[in-house]
Amino acid sequence: MKNLNALSIRYSEGELWILDQTLLPHKEVWIEIKKTEDMIEAIKKLKVRGAPLIGVAAALALAKLATDGANESEFLRAAKELRDSRPTAVNLMYAIDQLIKFDYSVEAVVAKAEQLFLEDVDLCERMARNGEKFISDGDNILTHCNTGGLATAGIGTALGVIKKAFDSGKKIHVYVDETRPLLQGGRLTTWELENYGIPYTLICDNMAANIMAQGKINSIFVGADRIAANGDFANKTGTYNLAVLAKYHGVPFYCVAPYTTIDFECVSGDDIPIEMRESSEVRGVKGNFGQIEWAPKGGSVYNPAFDVTPKKLVTAWILDRSVEVSTEGKLVNFVKSK
Amino acid sequence: MKNLNALSIRYSEGELWILDQTLLPHKEVWIEIKKTEDMIEAIKKLKVRGAPLIGVAAALALAKLATDGANESEFLRAAKELRDSRPTAVNLMYAIDQLIKFDYSVEAVVAKAEQLFLEDVDLCERMARNGEKFISDGDNILTHCNTGGLATAGIGTALGVIKKAFDSGKKIHVYVDETRPLLQGGRLTTWELENYGIPYTLICDNMAANIMAQGKINSIFVGADRIAANGDFANKTGTYNLAVLAKYHGVPFYCVAPYTTIDFECVSGDDIPIEMRESSEVRGVKGNFGQIEWAPKGGSVYNPAFDVTPKKLVTAWILDRSVEVSTEGKLVNFVKSK
Repeated sequence: MKNLNALSIRYSEGELWILDQTLLPHKEVWIEIKKTEDMIEAIKKLKVRGAPLIGVAAALALAKLATDGANESEFLRAAKELRDSRPTAVNLMYAIDQLIKFDYSVEAVVAKAEQLFLEDVDLCERMARNGEKFISDGDNILTHCNTGGLATAGIGTALGVIKKAFDSGKKIHVYVDETRPLLQGGRLTTWELENYGIPYTLICDNMAANIMAQGKINSIFVGADRIAANGDFANKTGTYNLAVLAKYHGVPFYCVAPYTTIDFECVSGDDIPIEMRESSEVRGVKGNFGQIEWAPKGGSVYNPAFDVTPKKLVTAWILDRSVEVSTEGKLVNFVKSK
Repeated sequence: MKNLNALSIRYSEGELWILDQTLLPHKEVWIEIKKTEDMIEAIKKLKVRGAPLIGVAAALALAKLATDGANESEFLRAAKELRDSRPTAVNLMYAIDQLIKFDYSVEAVVAKAEQLFLEDVDLCERMARNGEKFISDGDNILTHCNTGGLATAGIGTALGVIKKAFDSGKKIHVYVDETRPLLQGGRLTTWELENYGIPYTLICDNMAANIMAQGKINSIFVGADRIAANGDFANKTGTYNLAVLAKYHGVPFYCVAPYTTIDFECVSGDDIPIEMRESSEVRGVKGNFGQIEWAPKGGSVYNPAFDVTPKKLVTAWILDRSVEVSTEGKLVNFVKSK
């Protein structure tokens, strides 16, 4: 397989490495993925995260497995285990399905994995170009979670759009939701924005409303883990909160995702399965600083990894192949195709 | 001075003690307040917190100072320093003003401080009785921050209403916003609810919208640090977020506070000064587990301790002397009186 390099994954001379995102921003530690189990563990523990990147990472892990000599039944078992490692992101299922839909051969698997990686880079570039025109010079933009180079093989989805606007010379400023409980905004988006030199202000999630009330937010860009056929979409917990606030304050609210994020099997958001995660994540924080819990152990905790934003709260879906504006009640570009 | 006992402050045999709320829920440590400076430090560091309790705590500190033999100029200087220790809560200013508005004498100061303590207990009881009727058997209630026995000399404001409903035999369940950045919900409200045996579920602040969308919240009760004459009010950062969500989802939204929280000098919420706090609070967490920062130090942080909820989002103000319902555009019970 050819060498492939992204911000947080690389395939080099037959070795597969990932940047452990749970250790950012304080430590930049690369981990070698030697077996499929290593990648499943990395996905479950969010060392690799971001819907598009998970798909690419799973594909590269399977390509490595094939290259290392697995037979077809070993390959298919590993593919199934990877497919089940996280339940909400459709990109993961899409990537696995692409790798198992032809007669098994090392060459075919490797070619397809390379293609998925390079396609993701290209999709990011297309989304960024499509979305960048919704950002004006001087804008203040709010974003949630991390949807940048750490979440994809390319420059990102929502954060890719923001980066593209900045790189094109627009003076912008980004408000970053810290994104409890796992703090992908506070840890990862801040790290990326610092690296890119884009000015930002970090806030707690519950402060976004206050800033919108002051008229300081021009637009909101978020990613998506799965988009239903009707336009409802699942994204990091807290996204729906922002969508309601955006509607109330008249702030444009954009969902940025590759076309492959649309799951035509899901008629609406009600059909999207939502992953529930460990209560310890809400009782405290986990990271390279260890694990701390500040809440009593006795009470129950609600910890959905995602929430669903209904179509009616979305200003536009910025896809790689088109921008879909929800004005006429019909999503003309949401058409199933090859 | 007579002995006085509350959940987190006590005056006993001439000694003034506070429960260090920064160490809850894991450690219950009482600290002796020997000098006014100790109380100022405790208020600034949030060891003592909650708008009503801060007022009572300042009054007891001044009563101790007078009892310990301070002269009038020392007393007035200490009163001014205490008054300036936090800028948003009007109860603090009210308590200090009560203590300095007559000719200085130890007896008069002690009598007024005792009166403020006992009045707060009584005010809580009246608010709880006024508010309890808005809670039905089987209700799921959402609350933010901590507004219970840890925030007052009595049973609390918003949480006092909830406790009263539970104590009266209504089967209720409470969703607790963790309340970033200082986690008063996750650390303190959970601790109180555990102590009272009231069932609760802890959530991150950004999950409240998701739960409301599922129709699971019957009502929201919050406190207030200052209420303007028109009904706008300042409360813990994130309250305004909840108010917008409540309006969107049709959930009743109640502000519970003593009448003394109304500041007739503030015509509207625009006139309420908002305390800005250290960026380190948002970059990480602080507690008895030490101080951890997960965000890069480079970027800016926005950290207002409070936000302002406009009158139009409030279903009713539950005061000690009345319940004010915002239906006719005029707040008839918001009348300045002795």
